[in-house]
Amino acid sequence: MKQEITTFCGFSCPLEEAEIFVFGAPFDNTASFRPGTRFGPQAMRPDSWGLESYSPYHDRDLEDLKVVDLGDLNLPFGNPAKVLNLVHKQVEEIMQHKTPSGVQAKSFMLGGEHLLTQASVHAVHKHFPDLHLMHFDAHTDLRTEYLGEPLSHACVIRKCYDFLGDGRVHSFGIRSGLKEEWDFARQHLDFHPYTLNDVPASLAQLDKRTPLYITLDLDVLDPSVMPGTGTPEPGGVSFKELQEAFLAFRGYNVVAMDIMELSPPYDHSGISVAAACKALREMLLLWA
Amino acid sequence: MKQEITTFCGFSCPLEEAEIFVFGAPFDNTASFRPGTRFGPQAMRPDSWGLESYSPYHDRDLEDLKVVDLGDLNLPFGNPAKVLNLVHKQVEEIMQHKTPSGVQAKSFMLGGEHLLTQASVHAVHKHFPDLHLMHFDAHTDLRTEYLGEPLSHACVIRKCYDFLGDGRVHSFGIRSGLKEEWDFARQHLDFHPYTLNDVPASLAQLDKRTPLYITLDLDVLDPSVMPGTGTPEPGGVSFKELQEAFLAFRGYNVVAMDIMELSPPYDHSGISVAAACKALREMLLLWA
Amino acid sequence: MKQEITTFCGFSCPLEEAEIFVFGAPFDNTASFRPGTRFGPQAMRPDSWGLESYSPYHDRDLEDLKVVDLGDLNLPFGNPAKVLNLVHKQVEEIMQHKTPSGVQAKSFMLGGEHLLTQASVHAVHKHFPDLHLMHFDAHTDLRTEYLGEPLSHACVIRKCYDFLGDGRVHSFGIRSGLKEEWDFARQHLDFHPYTLNDVPASLAQLDKRTPLYITLDLDVLDPSVMPGTGTPEPGGVSFKELQEAFLAFRGYNVVAMDIMELSPPYDHSGISVAAACKALREMLLLWA
Amino acid sequence: MKQEITTFCGFSCPLEEAEIFVFGAPFDNTASFRPGTRFGPQAMRPDSWGLESYSPYHDRDLEDLKVVDLGDLNLPFGNPAKVLNLVHKQVEEIMQHKTPSGVQAKSFMLGGEHLLTQASVHAVHKHFPDLHLMHFDAHTDLRTEYLGEPLSHACVIRKCYDFLGDGRVHSFGIRSGLKEEWDFARQHLDFHPYTLNDVPASLAQLDKRTPLYITLDLDVLDPSVMPGTGTPEPGGVSFKELQEAFLAFRGYNVVAMDIMELSPPYDHSGISVAAACKALREMLLLWA
Amino acid sequence: MKQEITTFCGFSCPLEEAEIFVFGAPFDNTASFRPGTRFGPQAMRPDSWGLESYSPYHDRDLEDLKVVDLGDLNLPFGNPAKVLNLVHKQVEEIMQHKTPSGVQAKSFMLGGEHLLTQASVHAVHKHFPDLHLMHFDAHTDLRTEYLGEPLSHACVIRKCYDFLGDGRVHSFGIRSGLKEEWDFARQHLDFHPYTLNDVPASLAQLDKRTPLYITLDLDVLDPSVMPGTGTPEPGGVSFKELQEAFLAFRGYNVVAMDIMELSPPYDHSGISVAAACKALREMLLLWA
Amino acid sequence: MKQEITTFCGFSCPLEEAEIFVFGAPFDNTASFRPGTRFGPQAMRPDSWGLESYSPYHDRDLEDLKVVDLGDLNLPFGNPAKVLNLVHKQVEEIMQHKTPSGVQAKSFMLGGEHLLTQASVHAVHKHFPDLHLMHFDAHTDLRTEYLGEPLSHACVIRKCYDFLGDGRVHSFGIRSGLKEEWDFARQHLDFHPYTLNDVPASLAQLDKRTPLYITLDLDVLDPSVMPGTGTPEPGGVSFKELQEAFLAFRGYNVVAMDIMELSPPYDHSGISVAAACKALREMLLLWA
Repeated sequence: MKQEITTFCGFSCPLEEAEIFVFGAPFDNTASFRPGTRFGPQAMRPDSWGLESYSPYHDRDLEDLKVVDLGDLNLPFGNPAKVLNLVHKQVEEIMQHKTPSGVQAKSFMLGGEHLLTQASVHAVHKHFPDLHLMHFDAHTDLRTEYLGEPLSHACVIRKCYDFLGDGRVHSFGIRSGLKEEWDFARQHLDFHPYTLNDVPASLAQLDKRTPLYITLDLDVLDPSVMPGTGTPEPGGVSFKELQEAFLAFRGYNVVAMDIMELSPPYDHSGISVAAACKALREMLLLWA
Repeated sequence: MKQEITTFCGFSCPLEEAEIFVFGAPFDNTASFRPGTRFGPQAMRPDSWGLESYSPYHDRDLEDLKVVDLGDLNLPFGNPAKVLNLVHKQVEEIMQHKTPSGVQAKSFMLGGEHLLTQASVHAVHKHFPDLHLMHFDAHTDLRTEYLGEPLSHACVIRKCYDFLGDGRVHSFGIRSGLKEEWDFARQHLDFHPYTLNDVPASLAQLDKRTPLYITLDLDVLDPSVMPGTGTPEPGGVSFKELQEAFLAFRGYNVVAMDIMELSPPYDHSGISVAAACKALREMLLLWA
Repeated sequence: MKQEITTFCGFSCPLEEAEIFVFGAPFDNTASFRPGTRFGPQAMRPDSWGLESYSPYHDRDLEDLKVVDLGDLNLPFGNPAKVLNLVHKQVEEIMQHKTPSGVQAKSFMLGGEHLLTQASVHAVHKHFPDLHLMHFDAHTDLRTEYLGEPLSHACVIRKCYDFLGDGRVHSFGIRSGLKEEWDFARQHLDFHPYTLNDVPASLAQLDKRTPLYITLDLDVLDPSVMPGTGTPEPGGVSFKELQEAFLAFRGYNVVAMDIMELSPPYDHSGISVAAACKALREMLLLWA
Repeated sequence: MKQEITTFCGFSCPLEEAEIFVFGAPFDNTASFRPGTRFGPQAMRPDSWGLESYSPYHDRDLEDLKVVDLGDLNLPFGNPAKVLNLVHKQVEEIMQHKTPSGVQAKSFMLGGEHLLTQASVHAVHKHFPDLHLMHFDAHTDLRTEYLGEPLSHACVIRKCYDFLGDGRVHSFGIRSGLKEEWDFARQHLDFHPYTLNDVPASLAQLDKRTPLYITLDLDVLDPSVMPGTGTPEPGGVSFKELQEAFLAFRGYNVVAMDIMELSPPYDHSGISVAAACKALREMLLLWA
Repeated sequence: MKQEITTFCGFSCPLEEAEIFVFGAPFDNTASFRPGTRFGPQAMRPDSWGLESYSPYHDRDLEDLKVVDLGDLNLPFGNPAKVLNLVHKQVEEIMQHKTPSGVQAKSFMLGGEHLLTQASVHAVHKHFPDLHLMHFDAHTDLRTEYLGEPLSHACVIRKCYDFLGDGRVHSFGIRSGLKEEWDFARQHLDFHPYTLNDVPASLAQLDKRTPLYITLDLDVLDPSVMPGTGTPEPGGVSFKELQEAFLAFRGYNVVAMDIMELSPPYDHSGISVAAACKALREMLLLWA
Repeated sequence: MKQEITTFCGFSCPLEEAEIFVFGAPFDNTASFRPGTRFGPQAMRPDSWGLESYSPYHDRDLEDLKVVDLGDLNLPFGNPAKVLNLVHKQVEEIMQHKTPSGVQAKSFMLGGEHLLTQASVHAVHKHFPDLHLMHFDAHTDLRTEYLGEPLSHACVIRKCYDFLGDGRVHSFGIRSGLKEEWDFARQHLDFHPYTLNDVPASLAQLDKRTPLYITLDLDVLDPSVMPGTGTPEPGGVSFKELQEAFLAFRGYNVVAMDIMELSPPYDHSGISVAAACKALREMLLLWA
């Protein structure tokens, strides 16, 4: 008798041979507008089967990667601090994992709300002190607190900035925020609002060995492409623009990634889940 | 020039003449399954206009009541303790309010998640120390903690029991819970699972002057009637059964009420909002 | 080459042999809450194919009837008076039609909003002066005007009463209305609110030859059964209760019927359309 | 590093200790009206976590059972014959499996369309030649062919009858079919249309050791309770009636079961999936 | 005790200090295809809170404006003529209003169907006889009647033309209409079909003091961006193009505006409401 | 009495005068991901009425064409081979039809799944041996079998290639497939992936008299424009790009066309149906 349970893209690499570790982080407690991203990972698993494993853009195939799907973290509701610890622990464990081939283990988180990125980036940063953060988003996320709460999706990039430092955060596609946040961004970040056109130029200024963390808040996409997200912000980029931006990372040293803010309850037609799955494939293939 | 903004059922009694105070409590942070009840109050306001103010069941009209809609509390996400304080403060303020006619001010909360009921009942209990809680629900909600968190929708009735005491909680319609919760309920509560048939008999054992708090977790209704709720539990009661159970309260001393767990994102056809609005009318008319 | 376009239940009786004439009346202009019933007929045509033509309740088959689907009337928006004339003309034409077999032609209208019923009943009444109206509805519909407009879905039964006269309107399942409407109903109608239990008793008081018009406002059904309607009113009847009420009409002289207020935009799962189609079959088979 | 992927109800019994084998059969090729049941199993897995493992009706807990989730069969589209073979092979393998405790292994299939039941029943019948089939459904499913195809969801019970024989099929809740099917059912089946009231009486006529197969076509439930199914048929039973019918099987020798025809694309609010999950729990607990 | 009811964007300027008057006009009676725009204003109020008040495009903040939300007009159904009068009266009242600062009061209508624009433009035109109409739309709306009715959403721009005169109507983004309408448009209007590229050039030909009325029929946007509208017309503009077109109005003398044809029943994911709210902000900030 | 049933765009040319024959092919049995395209034709009929018959792009009107709507083929489920025969027979009959004017009859199929195209192209190819296939799609569809089945939507273009031969298939907009399929496409097809930019250049290499078959798999459009399709593939073309590509065919000898893979169950807002209807108009007008 055989037991075969649905994993992302049908990944079936045995745990002990894996080099890339994908996990779900189903949590959406600080969402200020529309909750639902807790259902992101579980919606992506079955629908990722509808996708070809071969990418004509990369001319590479997911089957050439050693990926394992660790399943979803078991996260309690109503306690963001505890949840951040659990995410931190998971990413730390992946970073320190010894792969059989000796290559550095890679972490890929699927959210869940963007707040969780601060724990993931922090764990990767401990391992790679010269880490840069490549940030795709509609929102600045640079508040120091939101409605009195410092642990909030609206503050996540500010928290990352606080430990990464000036010039280490590169933001693309931003089109919303407080005036203070925009001022801060222009002063302290490598800031490229509205489009993704500047990704290649921004990358060109980095040493190719610089360790990079890519965080994708899916709301960088236009709401027509990504209705299933917590805070849809009209005027975003197309999927083609996003996919081409990812291609620019070929040859760079991406060490960890995440895709956040997929909210299936607002994705009645499934096009948001489809876009998230294809983004997952295109991002993973940077490691092929 | 006139300014007329949508209120529940179009209530337009001036604040200073009001005797009944309705407010929204848009919070859903500890929802363990499907969030969305934060949108409950804002969905009820416009749709409550589709309802007649006259109830043929009561043969009474909402227009005979002095109700004011206070709007929604401004509740921060990610911090249940702070939110409970804000609810407590609001209900306390209502309880202590001096109405022009000298009658006791009444509080009616529209949720939001069931957790908030513990703050509301606590504030009413301070004012009415011999308070009894009439509890309509599909779930026991008698846990002492949920995934390690003591502030959870799954614990709310246990918290109320802790300060109300044995025999002061009357539960109807329950059909789900842990075995430990069911054992506890049978020992310490006036417990009537599965149906609402026993409401009249349970009331008959109370002095008519006993102050009563009615909490309605809308999931006591069958999911066919109330799809728009966080944790639909098949096998519930019909709207008719609920409406008849409310009629049994005529002549009793209801001092405060709430309607909780309406989740509009799962109510595509609007029938859940319609049922919540009609329940609101039928409950309010107990005060006519 | 053959041309076969979708008709209700696939009715394919040639126009010149038909005895029963079904037509759609796609209009919803006076809907005060949720419009959309204009799409009722076009939603019923394809879905009616999912239904068996045989009814085990009647032990009879639609294929034994000579029914033709006339298609939908072409109704202008924004002008209720003109629309009522067009409906009146269509029903009058059917009433006066000479069938080849010499039996009285029967009319079956599929709405569309309930307002249209007044034109249809009026045309039938001209042909059958001793007509009685059997009225299934959640609402009294007995206003003399609504927001200043006398042509309104909220006034339709009052208009019918005005030309039919006292005791000729029999209402079942009503559970909403103004106090004045309820008072009027109790005085002038054969009025049986809340349930359909009294249908057989009400019929028993009529001579079996009395011409009857059955108007079904689908909102008499509980919103759980019929979410796709303009004004869902919780606390209604089940489909079984409705189907059994129709059976009671066997042996009575039904001369025309309608099914009104199906609103497909609020029927995401299709269960409302399915219920309307099955009601159509069960009602048509009264003519078998 | 730990890998934990979502299974039905979180079942985590190791394959080698299991006594009950649950598997998904995602196939919907002969659906004549609305396809989509192929997504049934994958929708039930995550949502089954929202359910308590304890049933107050049974006063028993799923955690006392040794259940394993085998995942979904990999079924090709467009070839019903091949798919039936794959289902047959899976059930046969379960039936012949030697459990460590020596108890007979149990099979539980989650569909997928009802056609598959004929393969599952056939495999169980080979193992238990005196098998009886307990059939809950809205439709007779007794055709010998449908639009020329003998392999069809509309023929499945007729096929089972063909190898089980007269009086071995017990049908409950049926309310639709051709006249020929109803005549056949009345002659050759233990036939109890419209309700589930006769389940206890029907069981009482069987020896308690008779091996029973329960097949649940979810459309036996009223469409208000189960909108998410391929062929909704108004006038069905409530969830309570179904749950009580299952309780009647306590003490009888159920050897295999299935739940078929859950169609998530038509279940926007999730109440159908919730009902299917609770039915799964209540049925599984017959083995506790 | 405080009463705070949801207004557009949380506008809380006291009525007596306001300079900009926003009101809802919930009416959709002449919609020829899909009704539902009556729910536009009530859907925008709560969702407008999800939007930042700061616009990085304008580098200005809504909080710097003195805006009041007057609520929704109370409009009767089934009588377009009466409704047009009520809109006319409201806009006239705003135009004649004396603001405390002495600046001209501004009117902003939120629809509701496009027909209402003719009353609003007419009232503004009485106040500003040299008014020009800037018209963003997918449809010409230049019919003289529609199905025999002269009061129709399909005629609104023709009506405005009739009192504004040749060369005073500037249409952008049009991509549908009768051949006669296109011929008329090319002869009598400043007509720029398919795109918004010509907005700056068209503006450049006007004196900067010319009073302008901007009417935005949201269906000028592509249906992917704006599914929630009455008559979706594929091949429209993106939100970015629309937002950039608005920026071109900086420095011009806009005296009144409207946003029409938002139909929430067709906006399941909320992206249309989000786009309408952001358009509202971007347009309002022309007054900052 | 008149009988008028809904046809595509209201086409009412009598069968005997028609030159263009539109028919629906409601079948979706080999869909590997999301079924539902069987409902495509019946969704397009009523919604096509919302479209103007005049196209400003073509400056031509549908009313100048002699089109008849033949209705939908009656196709059995579960037997792809039989279904392909029925489609073949229908197209053959059209191809051989003698129109009164003597012009070659034209065939336009509305799907239904893409598999059916192979039967339609085959029937046209018999009539026009030098036929070229113009293929708009997101997927290569060049497999030789899919999960062991040679009759599959994933193989349809390969089947056409097999009888048309090298260089006779021109593919545009492709962005997904197996590596083998991409290699095959590059070797044997006139292959233009990702965009439609090369349509004019590709056409320019053909003699204007070459008979062309245009097959439009609607998933060539971006999922934001066309959510209602079986296998949404992010990164597609806009409606404008598609509409402009069609214009390039003016002056070429198109002899038959189809529009496939519209799946209404995933098109909650109706924008996919609207796009399919407008594509139908734009393609038909190539024959004006």
